[in-house]
Amino acid sequence: MAPHMAEWDEKEIFPVETMRKAAQLGFGGIYVKPDVGGSGLSRLDTSIIFEALSTGCTSTTAYMSIHNMCVWMIDTFGNEEQRRRFCPSLCSMEKFASYCLTEPGSGSDAASLLTSAQRTGDTYVLNGSKAFISGGGDTDVYVVMCRTGGPGPKGISCLVLEKGTPGLSFGKKERKVGWNSQPTRAVIFEDCTVPVGNRLGAEGQGFSIAMKGLNGGRINIASCSLGAAHACVLLAQEHLTVRKQFGEPLANNQYLQFGLAEMATRLVAARLMVRNAARALQEGREDAAVLCSMAKLFATDECFAICNQALQMHGGYGYLKDYAVQQFVRDVRVHQILEGTNEVMRMIVARNLLQG
Amino acid sequence: MAPHMAEWDEKEIFPVETMRKAAQLGFGGIYVKPDVGGSGLSRLDTSIIFEALSTGCTSTTAYMSIHNMCVWMIDTFGNEEQRRRFCPSLCSMEKFASYCLTEPGSGSDAASLLTSAQRTGDTYVLNGSKAFISGGGDTDVYVVMCRTGGPGPKGISCLVLEKGTPGLSFGKKERKVGWNSQPTRAVIFEDCTVPVGNRLGAEGQGFSIAMKGLNGGRINIASCSLGAAHACVLLAQEHLTVRKQFGEPLANNQYLQFGLAEMATRLVAARLMVRNAARALQEGREDAAVLCSMAKLFATDECFAICNQALQMHGGYGYLKDYAVQQFVRDVRVHQILEGTNEVMRMIVARNLLQG
Amino acid sequence: MAPHMAEWDEKEIFPVETMRKAAQLGFGGIYVKPDVGGSGLSRLDTSIIFEALSTGCTSTTAYMSIHNMCVWMIDTFGNEEQRRRFCPSLCSMEKFASYCLTEPGSGSDAASLLTSAQRTGDTYVLNGSKAFISGGGDTDVYVVMCRTGGPGPKGISCLVLEKGTPGLSFGKKERKVGWNSQPTRAVIFEDCTVPVGNRLGAEGQGFSIAMKGLNGGRINIASCSLGAAHACVLLAQEHLTVRKQFGEPLANNQYLQFGLAEMATRLVAARLMVRNAARALQEGREDAAVLCSMAKLFATDECFAICNQALQMHGGYGYLKDYAVQQFVRDVRVHQILEGTNEVMRMIVARNLLQG
Amino acid sequence: MAPHMAEWDEKEIFPVETMRKAAQLGFGGIYVKPDVGGSGLSRLDTSIIFEALSTGCTSTTAYMSIHNMCVWMIDTFGNEEQRRRFCPSLCSMEKFASYCLTEPGSGSDAASLLTSAQRTGDTYVLNGSKAFISGGGDTDVYVVMCRTGGPGPKGISCLVLEKGTPGLSFGKKERKVGWNSQPTRAVIFEDCTVPVGNRLGAEGQGFSIAMKGLNGGRINIASCSLGAAHACVLLAQEHLTVRKQFGEPLANNQYLQFGLAEMATRLVAARLMVRNAARALQEGREDAAVLCSMAKLFATDECFAICNQALQMHGGYGYLKDYAVQQFVRDVRVHQILEGTNEVMRMIVARNLLQG
Repeated sequence: MAPHMAEWDEKEIFPVETMRKAAQLGFGGIYVKPDVGGSGLSRLDTSIIFEALSTGCTSTTAYMSIHNMCVWMIDTFGNEEQRRRFCPSLCSMEKFASYCLTEPGSGSDAASLLTSAQRTGDTYVLNGSKAFISGGGDTDVYVVMCRTGGPGPKGISCLVLEKGTPGLSFGKKERKVGWNSQPTRAVIFEDCTVPVGNRLGAEGQGFSIAMKGLNGGRINIASCSLGAAHACVLLAQEHLTVRKQFGEPLANNQYLQFGLAEMATRLVAARLMVRNAARALQEGREDAAVLCSMAKLFATDECFAICNQALQMHGGYGYLKDYAVQQFVRDVRVHQILEGTNEVMRMIVARNLLQG
Repeated sequence: MAPHMAEWDEKEIFPVETMRKAAQLGFGGIYVKPDVGGSGLSRLDTSIIFEALSTGCTSTTAYMSIHNMCVWMIDTFGNEEQRRRFCPSLCSMEKFASYCLTEPGSGSDAASLLTSAQRTGDTYVLNGSKAFISGGGDTDVYVVMCRTGGPGPKGISCLVLEKGTPGLSFGKKERKVGWNSQPTRAVIFEDCTVPVGNRLGAEGQGFSIAMKGLNGGRINIASCSLGAAHACVLLAQEHLTVRKQFGEPLANNQYLQFGLAEMATRLVAARLMVRNAARALQEGREDAAVLCSMAKLFATDECFAICNQALQMHGGYGYLKDYAVQQFVRDVRVHQILEGTNEVMRMIVARNLLQG
Repeated sequence: MAPHMAEWDEKEIFPVETMRKAAQLGFGGIYVKPDVGGSGLSRLDTSIIFEALSTGCTSTTAYMSIHNMCVWMIDTFGNEEQRRRFCPSLCSMEKFASYCLTEPGSGSDAASLLTSAQRTGDTYVLNGSKAFISGGGDTDVYVVMCRTGGPGPKGISCLVLEKGTPGLSFGKKERKVGWNSQPTRAVIFEDCTVPVGNRLGAEGQGFSIAMKGLNGGRINIASCSLGAAHACVLLAQEHLTVRKQFGEPLANNQYLQFGLAEMATRLVAARLMVRNAARALQEGREDAAVLCSMAKLFATDECFAICNQALQMHGGYGYLKDYAVQQFVRDVRVHQILEGTNEVMRMIVARNLLQG
Repeated sequence: MAPHMAEWDEKEIFPVETMRKAAQLGFGGIYVKPDVGGSGLSRLDTSIIFEALSTGCTSTTAYMSIHNMCVWMIDTFGNEEQRRRFCPSLCSMEKFASYCLTEPGSGSDAASLLTSAQRTGDTYVLNGSKAFISGGGDTDVYVVMCRTGGPGPKGISCLVLEKGTPGLSFGKKERKVGWNSQPTRAVIFEDCTVPVGNRLGAEGQGFSIAMKGLNGGRINIASCSLGAAHACVLLAQEHLTVRKQFGEPLANNQYLQFGLAEMATRLVAARLMVRNAARALQEGREDAAVLCSMAKLFATDECFAICNQALQMHGGYGYLKDYAVQQFVRDVRVHQILEGTNEVMRMIVARNLLQG
C-alpha cells in the first residue's frame, strides 16, 4: 500500500480493490471463524497483521480494522443464519461494513444514544442518526446500536442494516485532518424498516456487544498506531543518515541520536502493551478489558508523539506532503480520539483501580 | 480574517487584497521607519499586533511577519536610495517580499549556502537555488543571501532581486500540512543579473544582516504561535461549555478543567517570554539574541502543545476541517521548524550558556 | 547562607542568628510599612530578594517568606495598636512568626477548618489543632485562623497568639525530606485564652485575610523555587564544564548542552511569570490572584524539574549530600505542595477561566 | 522488610540478618547454578523476585541485586575451583559481595579505568581506587575490574579480592539522598597482593565480564524500580480513598483518578519492558543487551515519575518521613543514574539503531 498512501490521501480514495486483494490473504475477517470465510487467527496475530499493514497506509488499515471488528461481532453474536448470510461476503470484502455507535449528541457517553428502533411484529422501525461513521455511505453493511428499551445501556440492541434499505441516507463526506482514504459520513435513519432477524443477540444486549467489539477494536487501532510509529522511526533514521548539515550527517548529532533512542524505546513499550492486551483478550482473562484500555491509551499517545518527533527530525521536509512522515502524523492523531477517547480510557482504568 | 481562514486553507489562496487592507492599517511595515511608509512602532507593538492578527489566520499573519522582516532589513541596512526605492510599495503591500536564505543543501547550517553572486563591474551574476521560500513565485521582491566571497558566514552578501529579472524562476508549489494561505516554492537563479546597487550593506555583511532580521523574525513567528494558542484556548473553552456528555457540559469534568488551566498558564508564560524578548531587542540589549531564541523555542513548543490539546478537547470534532482548531494545529506545527529549528534554538542558547 | 546550608540541613538547625542578620538588612518585613520597622518595598522587590536569598539556602529563605507574610498580615489588617505591638519585633526578627491555617483534617479545603474560638466577654477560648506549621514550637507569634461563627469561610476569624499562652502546646518535630532548617510541628490549642484585642480585622474576615496573605505567599515561595533552580543551573553548568568523561568535558555532549539550554529557558519563563504576578499584586490588579496562582503552579513545577535535571547531570555525585544540588531538589519539592497544592492552583485558575 | 525500611533508612542500617533470612529462601544466588548453592532460576524469575522484595525495601533489595550479579559473575566466568570457593558462602549470604567498576575519574566511560594490576609471578599487585561502591567496607568479597594491559576495554581484567587483604582500605561512608540501608564507600587499593588464581576468566576479558554482569544488573535494578512504583501506586490509591477533603474522599477527584490511571498504565508498560528484556537475556537473544538498556531507561525513568506523582498525591504527608512514599522516591532516584546512567542507556540504544 505504501506507494499509494499519498495519492489515496490527497484524492480521498477509498481503495476498495486493494482491500479486496488483502482480503484474499485472509485480512477481511482475521479473527473470524473459518467456517464463514474467516482466517480464524488469534488477537495477537491480528495485532501483528494490522501493525504490519499500517506501515503501508495507516488510514486504510484502520478502516480494515473496523471492518474486521464488525464481522467479528456478527460471527460471535449472530446466530447461524446471520453468520452465513453476512460473514462470507464481508470476509472476502465483496461487501464492506461500518460500525454505528456514536451519535451527534453521544460520544464518550455512548450509552445515552437516542436512535430508536420500535418493534412492530417482525420488524423494527429505525429513526435517528449516527455521526463520524467510518466508511459511511460507501459501505454495504451497517452494524447499528439503537434503543429498543428504556434509557441506559440495558435498553440498547444491535441491528444489522444493509445499504439500500429505504429511509437510510448519509450526510456529506466530512473533510478531515487525515484518515482520508476512508470516507466519514453521518448515517441517517428515517423510518427504516429492519427485520427482527437482523438483530444480533437478544434485545438489550446491544451495548454489551458494542463494548466487546471495542475491546478488540482498541487493540487493533493501537496496532495501527504501532505500524505508523514504526514506519516513522525508520523514516527518521534514514533521513538522519542521509541528510547532511555542518558537513556531516544529521545522525552525528547526539541530541538527535538520543531522541531516536527514546522513540525506539517507547515504541517497544507500546508494542509490548498492545501484544500483552491481545493475549489477555484471546485468553479471555478477567482483566482483558482494562488491559485493552491501557494499551489503547498508552500506544496511541506514545505513537503520536513518536510520529510527531520524527516529523520534527525531518526539518522543513517533514511539513511537505511529498514526505510520508506528515501523513502518518495526521493519520494517527485521531487514534487518540476514537474508539473511546483517551480520556475515556483513563476513566475505564481509574474505575478499575478504585473499585477493585 | 477569521471568517476566511478555512477557505484560504482549503483553496490555497494567498489573500493579497486582505493583506493590502491590513497594510492600510500600517501592518505592512510595522517596525519600519515612517519616512518610507512604515509605522515606526516598537518590537513589542509588533509582537502584540501579530499575536492579534494570527487569532484570525495564523498562516496569513505568519507570511506578513516575514514580509515585515524583509522590509525592516531594507529599511535598516539599505542606503537612502534603496530605502526610498523599495520600502514605500512594500509598506503599502502594493508589492510583497520574500526572505531567501535556506537552500536545499543548507538549512540549519545556513552559513554554508552555495548560491553564488559573481561580480563583473556594476553587476552580480547570481546562480543557485533557494528552498522553502514563503511567498516564492507570488511575491515581487526577493531578499537573497548569496556568496560573494570565500566559504563561511563572512563570504555572504545580501542582494535584493525583483520579480521579472531574467533567469529568475520558481519550483512547483509545495503541498504542505498547513500554512496553505501562503505559497511555498523553490526560487531558482540562472545567470540572473543584479545591479550592485541592489546590495544591502557591504560585501560580506549578508549573513549578519540575515541573522539580525531573524532575531525579530523569531519573535514575530513566536507571536503568531501565541495568537493561535490564544484562539485555541478560547475555542476549547467554548466547546467544553457548550458540548454535553453524561448529562452535563464537558466543562464539569475536573480533568478537562485542570487541563485548560494548565494550557492557559503555559500560554501566559509563552506570552511573557515573547514580550520580554521583544523589549530586549527594542532596547538593543546584549542578551537580546539569546532571549529571542529562548522565546521562539519556548513559545512555539508550548503553543503547539496547547493547540494540540485543544484539538483533543474537541473530541471527534477537532479532527474535522469544519472546526478551526485543527487548522491552528496544522499551521503552528511548522513554527517549531522554521526561522531556525527549535534544535538550532537550543544550540544558540547552549552556546551562550557554556561560552559565557 | 550557602556555606551553612548543608549543615543546617543535616543537623536540622533553625538559624535564628543568621536570620536576624538578614533582618538588619531589612529582610524581616520587606513589604511591611516603614513606620513599624518594615522596609516598605514592593512585591517585585520582595520576589527578587527571596530569589537571591534562596540561592544560599532555600529552606531558610522559605521560612523567612512565611514570616514576612505573617508580618504583612498584621501590618495590613491589624489596627494601629496591633501594628505597633507586633510588627517592630517581628521586622527585626527578635521574634519569629508562624502562619496557622492547615489542620489535620483540612488541607486543600481550608475553609472547613474546625479549630474553634468561643468568645466570652473580652476573650476567645481557642480549641483545636493545626498541622504542618512552619516554625511551630520555635517561633513566638502565631497567626491563627479559627472558627468564631458558622461553617464555611464566613465563619472564620484571625487571631494572633503568643508563645507562652497557657494551653498552647506543640507536636513532635516532623522529620521531612527537606526544609530541615525550619522546624515543622503541629500546634495544639487546649482552652487557650486569647484577648479579643488580638483579633486581626473583624469577626468572619479571617479567611479573606488568610487568602490575601497567601497571594503574596505564593509569589514568595515561587521566588524561592527560582533561586534554587538558578543555583542548580549554575551548579550543573560548572559540573559539566569541569567533569571529564571520554577524554573531554561533559559539556561537550550535545545532549547535555541542549538539556541545559532547555533548563535555562524554562527558568527564564518561570521568573517572568513570578515577576509579572508580583507586579500585578503590587498594582492591585483584578487578575492578581489568578496570576499568583499561575506563577506558583508554573514556577514550582518547572523549577523542581530543573533542579532534578541538574541532579541527573551530576551523575552519582548528585546523589551525595556533599553536593548541594540534591538539597535544592529536596527543598523545592515541597513548594509544589504547600501554600495551596499545585492541584489547588489548577482549580483556582480553572474556576477563573470557566466562570469568567 | 516493609516494617523496617524507615528505620534502616534513618539509622543507616545494613540489614545483614534480614538478608541472610532472604538467602535461606534462595535469594542470595537466584540465577546461580544449584551445585554451588544457587537457586538456578531464570532471569524472569529473578526480576519478579526483586520486584516483589523491593516493595518492602527498595534500597536493601537493590543491594541484594548487586550481590546476586557478583555471584553470577563468579559462577559464570569463574573456574570450578573459584565457583566452589566463593559461591556457596555468597549464596547463603554468610558473605556479601561488592561490584567494583566505577572510579572517581571514570563513570560513564568505564573502559578508561586506571586501577592497575601488575603481575609478578603468581600474583597481581593492585593499586588505585573505586568510587560509589555499594556495600563497600561492610562486604567481604570485591569483584574488581582493573587494568592488566594497555588502554581501553581490552586491557581490563577481573579480580576477586577478599576483605582483610593488606592494602585494602575504604573511604568514609557517603551520606546520600536515599539507598541508606546499604553503605557506599570508596574502595582503595595500595599494593594489594592478589593471587592469579583469583582472576575470573582470561586476562583482558574483564570488561566483557563486567558488561555481561550489567545486562542482568540493569534488569534487576529496573525490577527494583518496578517494586517501588508498585508500592507507591498502592499507597496513593489508599491515601486517595481514605483522605477526605471538601467532604468527600480525594479519590472522587477526576483529576486524581485519571492521574492514578496514567500511573498504573505506565507501571504496566515498564513491567512489560523489564520482563521482555529478562526473557531475551535468558534466551541469549542477540538483541538482549539493547533490550536490557531500553528496559532500564524506560522503567527507571517512568517509575521515578510514578513514585514522585504518588508523593504529590499525598499532599503534605508525602513530604514526611513517617510516610513510606517519600522513601521510595528517594531510593529509586539513583536508579536513573547507576549501572550506567540513563544517558548511557540512550547512547547504547542509539548506537544500535544507527549502526545496524
